[in-house]
Amino acid sequence: MDVLYGRNSVAEALRGRRRVHRVAIARGAHGLDELIGLARAQRIAPEFLDRDRLDRLAQGAHHQGVVAEAEPFPYVPLDDLLGGDAPFLLVLDSLQDPQNFGSLIRTAQACGVDGVVIAEHRAVAVTPSVSNASAGAVEHLAVTRVTNLTRAIETLKARNVWVYGLTVQAESAYFDTDLRGPLALVVGSEGAGLSRLVREACDALLHIPMAPGAIESLNASVAGSLVVYEAFRQRTRERVRQDTVGA
Amino acid sequence: MDVLYGRNSVAEALRGRRRVHRVAIARGAHGLDELIGLARAQRIAPEFLDRDRLDRLAQGAHHQGVVAEAEPFPYVPLDDLLGGDAPFLLVLDSLQDPQNFGSLIRTAQACGVDGVVIAEHRAVAVTPSVSNASAGAVEHLAVTRVTNLTRAIETLKARNVWVYGLTVQAESAYFDTDLRGPLALVVGSEGAGLSRLVREACDALLHIPMAPGAIESLNASVAGSLVVYEAFRQRTRERVRQDTVGA
Repeated sequence: MDVLYGRNSVAEALRGRRRVHRVAIARGAHGLDELIGLARAQRIAPEFLDRDRLDRLAQGAHHQGVVAEAEPFPYVPLDDLLGGDAPFLLVLDSLQDPQNFGSLIRTAQACGVDGVVIAEHRAVAVTPSVSNASAGAVEHLAVTRVTNLTRAIETLKARNVWVYGLTVQAESAYFDTDLRGPLALVVGSEGAGLSRLVREACDALLHIPMAPGAIESLNASVAGSLVVYEAFRQRTRERVRQDTVGA
Repeated sequence: MDVLYGRNSVAEALRGRRRVHRVAIARGAHGLDELIGLARAQRIAPEFLDRDRLDRLAQGAHHQGVVAEAEPFPYVPLDDLLGGDAPFLLVLDSLQDPQNFGSLIRTAQACGVDGVVIAEHRAVAVTPSVSNASAGAVEHLAVTRVTNLTRAIETLKARNVWVYGLTVQAESAYFDTDLRGPLALVVGSEGAGLSRLVREACDALLHIPMAPGAIESLNASVAGSLVVYEAFRQRTRERVRQDTVGA
C-alpha cells in the first residue's frame, strides 16, 4: 500500500487509475472542497484527523493537510505504450532523485508523452514522493518498469520507434534534430549520464549546447524537460500543418 | 557567515568571488584532491574531521564530505548587471523553493545569463542550500537583491532592456518571440506565478503552450529554464550569423 500525501498528488490519484482506500484530512483545513467531492464520488468518506495524527500517517512528509492510502502505483506492460501511430516515449536511465523524477514526469504529462519507461534496479520507482513532486501528473501517465533497459530499447527499435539518447558526448544539438514520428528520448542519471550499454543501444545521440564558460551541466530534470518540450513543440507544429492541409 | 556544503558548492565558492575562511573535509573521503588544491591555492589548510563533527557543522545537510565557512553571498548592485551591449537578465518574482531557485540559477549560468535580480522580501535568498542546488553555479553569477521588484523592472526598461514576463495569461508562445537584444525574463513563484504589479510592469507577456489534457503547469524551475534556454539559443544563433557575415 502507498501512503500518498499533498493536495495535488491525492486529488489526481482520485481522478486517476489507482484505487484509493482511505482519505484523511486535517481538521480545519481550508480549500479542500473539491478534493472531498472527488473522494465522495469514489464512495470514500474522508476522515478528519488532528494534525499530529496526520503528521504520523504521512511519516513526516509535507502533506498540506491531506494524506491518502492507495494501492501501489499501477505500472503497465511495455506493449501498452506502443498503441498509437507515432508513440512519444521517455526512457529514464537510473534517475535517483524523486524530485527530479517527479519534475520530469510533470513535464512529460504536460507535453503529451504517451509513456515512460524506467528500470527496476538502481533507479527510483514511482513512490509517493515522486507522485507529490510531479504534482500528481504521474497518476495520469503510463509508466513501465523493466528489468533490462537495453533490452527494452531493442524492443522499441524493433517496433520502429526511433531512440535518441541525451548525452554530452553527442554531435547533434537537440533543437537541430527532427523529433517527430515514433520517438523515444533516453535521459540519464544525475551524476553519470547514460550508462555505456544504454548509450550504445540508442539509434543516435543528442546534446544540449551550453554557453562558453558554463561551469556545470544542467539539472537532470531540466535537461530532460528541454528535449521533451522541443519534441512536443515540433510534433504539435506538424499536427497543425497537417490539420491545415486537411482543412 | 555562511556554512556551505557539498563538493560542487564548496569547489565553486573557492573558484568564485567570495572569501572562504575555513574548509573541513571528512577524514578518509576520496576524490577530493582537486578541491584540496583549490583550498591550498587560497592559503586555506583544509581540516580533516570525523564524519559526525562534519555532520554537526553542516547542520544535517547532505554534505558529501565537504563543508566550508565563507562570507555571506556577495550580491552586486543592479547597475553592475547592465554593463554590456545587450544584457541578458533573469528576474525572479518570489521563488520560494531553494531547489527550484538553485536549479534555475544553474540553467542561467549554463546559458550565459549576465545577472539575476531577486526580491529581498517573500523570496528565498542565495543561501547555502541554493548554492548546493545550483551545483555551485551561483558562485559565478552576478545576483542583485532589490527591495522593490517593480521599481527594478522600471529601471531596466529605462535602460532599454526589454522585459518579458512568463505567465499563463499571455497570448504569445515564448518560442515564437524574438528574445535577442537587451532582455530581462521575469519568472514567477511556484504557486501564484507573477504578482499583479510585476506582471503589469512587464513590456510583454509570454506563455508556454501545453498539450491538450495537461493537468498541471510545469515545475517553476523547468518553466523558467525552457525560456532562458530558448533566449540563449536565439542569441547564440544571432552571434553565429554575425560572425559568418563578418568573416
